[in-house]
Amino acid sequence: MSLRALGEFGFIRAMRARHPEAAAGSPLRLGVGDDACALKLSPGTELLATCDLLIEGVHFDLATTGPWQLGAKALAASLSDIAAMGGLPRAYLVSLSIPKRKGLDEGFFAALYDGLAAWGQSFGAELAGGDTTRSPGPLVIDICCLGEAEAGRALLRSGAKPGDKAFVTGSLGGSAAGLACLKAPRAKVDADARALCEKRHLLPQPRYLAGRWLLDRKAASSCIDISDGLASEASHLCAASHVGMRLEAQDIPLHQGACAAAKTLRRKALDWALYGGEDYELLFTVPPAKAALVEAEMPRLTGTPVACIGEVLAPRVGLCLRDGRHSRRLAAGGYNHFRA
Amino acid sequence: MSLRALGEFGFIRAMRARHPEAAAGSPLRLGVGDDACALKLSPGTELLATCDLLIEGVHFDLATTGPWQLGAKALAASLSDIAAMGGLPRAYLVSLSIPKRKGLDEGFFAALYDGLAAWGQSFGAELAGGDTTRSPGPLVIDICCLGEAEAGRALLRSGAKPGDKAFVTGSLGGSAAGLACLKAPRAKVDADARALCEKRHLLPQPRYLAGRWLLDRKAASSCIDISDGLASEASHLCAASHVGMRLEAQDIPLHQGACAAAKTLRRKALDWALYGGEDYELLFTVPPAKAALVEAEMPRLTGTPVACIGEVLAPRVGLCLRDGRHSRRLAAGGYNHFRA
Repeated sequence: MSLRALGEFGFIRAMRARHPEAAAGSPLRLGVGDDACALKLSPGTELLATCDLLIEGVHFDLATTGPWQLGAKALAASLSDIAAMGGLPRAYLVSLSIPKRKGLDEGFFAALYDGLAAWGQSFGAELAGGDTTRSPGPLVIDICCLGEAEAGRALLRSGAKPGDKAFVTGSLGGSAAGLACLKAPRAKVDADARALCEKRHLLPQPRYLAGRWLLDRKAASSCIDISDGLASEASHLCAASHVGMRLEAQDIPLHQGACAAAKTLRRKALDWALYGGEDYELLFTVPPAKAALVEAEMPRLTGTPVACIGEVLAPRVGLCLRDGRHSRRLAAGGYNHFRA
Repeated sequence: MSLRALGEFGFIRAMRARHPEAAAGSPLRLGVGDDACALKLSPGTELLATCDLLIEGVHFDLATTGPWQLGAKALAASLSDIAAMGGLPRAYLVSLSIPKRKGLDEGFFAALYDGLAAWGQSFGAELAGGDTTRSPGPLVIDICCLGEAEAGRALLRSGAKPGDKAFVTGSLGGSAAGLACLKAPRAKVDADARALCEKRHLLPQPRYLAGRWLLDRKAASSCIDISDGLASEASHLCAASHVGMRLEAQDIPLHQGACAAAKTLRRKALDWALYGGEDYELLFTVPPAKAALVEAEMPRLTGTPVACIGEVLAPRVGLCLRDGRHSRRLAAGGYNHFRA
């Protein structure tokens, strides 16, 4: 059905119907349908809140991203921020600005809300509200994710100390490789590698269990999620912690599909890892005394691979990358919305 | 300075610098600058959260709205939702999507953030985070406002009972009259009336003290804020409460400036009140036994005028308006984003 035929309030009812009713005992005491949602936090916790804005033509292209994937991905970006604080996701609000255009109909948004619901359920977050308007421009999605963490214990960007080890979860470069594959549908990238990379780009998995484990074990001195490339996020972490950092190129875990795709596409997987975006892994620092614990327990208990990729140094060192015998300063890189 | 010269992170630093640092003991333990904010709720409360999306060309026109007013108004829309729940505003996140265009520079956004900060400080809410991106279309502002209310006691749309009295705070129609005045700059509307209406449209005042009083005194059986016209909001309240309502035309408090402007502009102030938007007053229902308390105490203790404008009836009555001896069904009216 067209949105014009459905009407704004019919739209809200239809999308709300795609989400399971909050179970008895849910912390979301009041969801969609009133002036605000009401969320009961667990005793001893504090609220975490974060917003992520996705703009058609800037963050996604409907030619390569389906509505279900778009819903999942929009929520994943915010869930990843809660994960990077060591938080427990609880609820999310969805603001949508929708252009009048063929194809952006009830079916499209039903799929988008199904994608939201699937990722929300996987990570424990319920649809709690939002706002819906017409757009005279692109499709706009803003997700505000609400979570909780034990009071005063959220993982911050600002606690790294010289001597700490730098770790990342999972592997890097896969999302940027997936985007490159999607933009080159005829390039002869190995089919398995292409599928791995494209899935990685379209359906990112926030590292929520890893963040919870780090908080619970007090294992990390700082943490940030990698949404804009390792170089950019490492430089944010260094700035917030007033430290420098040396990364070891050969220790950065590159996404397997990205390595294969890079050869065919004549690109460098390491550049995708450093300057690509949307991997949604965690970069975190660990005091030396806890490094062995992280390496031994974290993969086993959270199902998350981890790799030590460098060391925190004095601030004067800045952020640098050692590649074989050469060491070079890393530009912060990443995506700058006003300069791109 | 242009945003291109400032850069995305320079922009964030500059806007953050316009907000006072959180005072010691602030419930906002962690504001702008990490992956998420951290907010400590008061004991015995639960979180309230709401989003309001404002799109250039749909919700505002930069020809008639300055950046300072736009910031204040964007926040007011969300604060009004917290007020309608009887909540205490605490923090807000600001998502901005910014087109490349002359005039949308550092000075413009400095004024916008100053407007946000002014309204935030007036109502006790601190800047806590957000997201900033480029826009290939219009300027987009999404505000997510976070507040708290005593657990289980937030004012809902859904508690009205037949026999309850319907009240509104303040006066209605002023914001729509202000918009009409702004669109007719040469019309010979009385200068004082014009100024009153335009101010009402550009700088709405959420009824936060009124909402808090209603919650504290357990005086309201239901409550909603009037952002889309009285007819639309009354119909939402009736639907959520499964009741009908009769409004008395002669008891609806019309904005003084709107009455004067309506004559000159050959419009009806009552239509502005019923079908205009953005008055941000509260519509609430009160059990008969509490009506005298509301009329006696609320204006005195909250500085908010209140008026009894009708009665809650059985659902089969629907929503109707009695004007002299005639009674008619009211169409829900209000702004429908997909049909407008």
